Amino acid sequence: MSDKVQIFDTTLRDGEQVPGCQLKTEEKVIIARELEALGVDVIEAGFPISSPGDFLSVVELSKALKHATVCGLTRAKKDDIDVAAEALLHAKRGRIHTGIGSSDVHIKHKFKSTREQVLEQGVWAVKYAKEKNYEVEFYAEDAGRADLAFLAQMIEAVIAAGADVVNIPDTTGYCLPHLYGKRIQYLFENVKNIHKAVVSVHCHNDLGLATANTMAGILNGARQAEVTINGIGERAGNTSLEEVAMIIQTHKDLGLTTDIKSDRIFEISHMVSEMMRMPVQPNKAIVGRNAFAHSSGIHQDGFLKHAENYEIINPADVGVPSSSIVLTARSGRAALRHRLELLGHRVEGEVLNNIYEHFLLVADEKKMVDDDDLSMLVASHLVLVNK
Amino acid sequence: MSDKVQIFDTTLRDGEQVPGCQLKTEEKVIIARELEALGVDVIEAGFPISSPGDFLSVVELSKALKHATVCGLTRAKKDDIDVAAEALLHAKRGRIHTGIGSSDVHIKHKFKSTREQVLEQGVWAVKYAKEKNYEVEFYAEDAGRADLAFLAQMIEAVIAAGADVVNIPDTTGYCLPHLYGKRIQYLFENVKNIHKAVVSVHCHNDLGLATANTMAGILNGARQAEVTINGIGERAGNTSLEEVAMIIQTHKDLGLTTDIKSDRIFEISHMVSEMMRMPVQPNKAIVGRNAFAHSSGIHQDGFLKHAENYEIINPADVGVPSSSIVLTARSGRAALRHRLELLGHRVEGEVLNNIYEHFLLVADEKKMVDDDDLSMLVASHLVLVNK
Repeated sequence: MSDKVQIFDTTLRDGEQVPGCQLKTEEKVIIARELEALGVDVIEAGFPISSPGDFLSVVELSKALKHATVCGLTRAKKDDIDVAAEALLHAKRGRIHTGIGSSDVHIKHKFKSTREQVLEQGVWAVKYAKEKNYEVEFYAEDAGRADLAFLAQMIEAVIAAGADVVNIPDTTGYCLPHLYGKRIQYLFENVKNIHKAVVSVHCHNDLGLATANTMAGILNGARQAEVTINGIGERAGNTSLEEVAMIIQTHKDLGLTTDIKSDRIFEISHMVSEMMRMPVQPNKAIVGRNAFAHSSGIHQDGFLKHAENYEIINPADVGVPSSSIVLTARSGRAALRHRLELLGHRVEGEVLNNIYEHFLLVADEKKMVDDDDLSMLVASHLVLVNK
Repeated sequence: MSDKVQIFDTTLRDGEQVPGCQLKTEEKVIIARELEALGVDVIEAGFPISSPGDFLSVVELSKALKHATVCGLTRAKKDDIDVAAEALLHAKRGRIHTGIGSSDVHIKHKFKSTREQVLEQGVWAVKYAKEKNYEVEFYAEDAGRADLAFLAQMIEAVIAAGADVVNIPDTTGYCLPHLYGKRIQYLFENVKNIHKAVVSVHCHNDLGLATANTMAGILNGARQAEVTINGIGERAGNTSLEEVAMIIQTHKDLGLTTDIKSDRIFEISHMVSEMMRMPVQPNKAIVGRNAFAHSSGIHQDGFLKHAENYEIINPADVGVPSSSIVLTARSGRAALRHRLELLGHRVEGEVLNNIYEHFLLVADEKKMVDDDDLSMLVASHLVLVNK
């Protein structure tokens, strides 16, 4: 089995469907290009049948991206697959992501169907999508709560039908890591043709376990991780790209790799936070403002003696600017602009002027303006201007 | 072994030492009383020798708390232990939390010492703290990276010296859940007197794995979890109280319990966020603004058909107000005040007036003002006023 873990980013699909996070197509193109530069393997660009905007975004990303696979989401329905296939026409590498519920609660209450019927519909959808000459990924929705024997039967059938990738989502974020890992292990042990497809893990963070579940899946043989920048997404969000990438990079003993260029993480984190209006909390792993700040007396002392005492990642490895400039009421527009840029906010002209005026008020009150204050300033500005 | 997991909250110690989070003693007393009402077993109140403010806080919390154990942090030094013992004099139940580094990197570079010397100093500190007639908890700093055989030797020695609780911290947030779980399992299998003490887990979130590591420790026999509200703390923070409590409550099959009254979680989360000026991101598990929001077409449809399709926790179980009032420029001060209160912000008088004026500006721009905007408004107000 390969030691390369494919990174499937769904910031622009599962992340973008969160209220308040909607992007224009031009904005999606900007983020997608950054994701490609970051080293992401697959970019889920939207759910083409859901709206003309999503359709257009998949079209434009298909044109814009050079190396990354572009993926469009569908249900296991003819119209969905037709529309996705059309949207992907210009993609250098296109993928249709189709699927259906696999847990009894979804089969009974959402699809008003039976195990036999959803299995048949899933197999049909994979075959139909394959006819379009794209890669096909199948998702077994709510696999985290599905009957394991039935899930194995479904996965075997869709791989036989031609699925290149099989996605085992923990849709509700219910699983515990050791149990999610065992589900993936069970599939490897009980699905005869499992090695003909890449197994993908797609986890949600409702109980704070998305990253751990994703790693448990990878340690049991999954080789694609579905993630978002900053872990944004429905409810408590999806698995964080930056956490999975840095776990694999830090724990070299696992013998795994990704193509993520980690020193680009900090910049894209800020870009996504700002463009999608989703603040990152200061104590967010890897990309939070405090993630590399050493503050308490004990820790500061230990840190100064030997960085490795308290630091397992070098901030430069994820692109965190090392500067700790503090601004005051005497700082000019250029200094403000420079500091904001280091924090990932590119502002010019009128917007810069407005933020600068607000900045002077804060600087008068506080004497020293730190990165926390600057992030708040930009955030409060976005409320008034961008929404 | 008991199925009750003790909740040790260190919001007011490990959380409070983050820059910008410092509280006055009166504020600490307010939060501590809420923590006691929440059902926390142990409250770490400060590091008494580190400052007069920390000393005073431990004194005042000792006086104020009725049931919860009050804990004071020390290094393995005579003065530290003397001062902590004095600060705890009025506690109904007091605990001294002492310890020393256990990993070779800490022993060599932080303590400039040897394994033999730190072991001896740790044993001495436990014996000396025991003479003060409090419960004694021992922390083996950086246990996540310590040599396992040496760690077991140290833990056996401090339990023999009288430690009631032994804390196995992953100080740098480096561990993977299955490996951290194995460390705890190793101690249960190799420390002869391990059942004479409670094993405690204290994890950090540098790789996004604090909650998973904590659960791995508990599943391998630990019966105390060291946590903070909203996962605040140094760098990427500590394990989130709300995540551990809700995993144990949701996964009844684990056969574990805590005394946490989960319907108080949302309120105390907002109180801590506001008083300690640490925003909670919308996609934070359990307590984020979006944690229970169902937005996308597919999910909304499934959710309306049957809540269990996408919801593993009833929002009311964690005290989330179910109202979804939207405010407009015609909303009065009372409506704003009510909505802010539901969001956990209690504002009155001049502060309310100032926020109301800012609110009207936003309402004019946007027509509808949602909880997101209100949180931004309050946050931007705090920058100007409270810091």
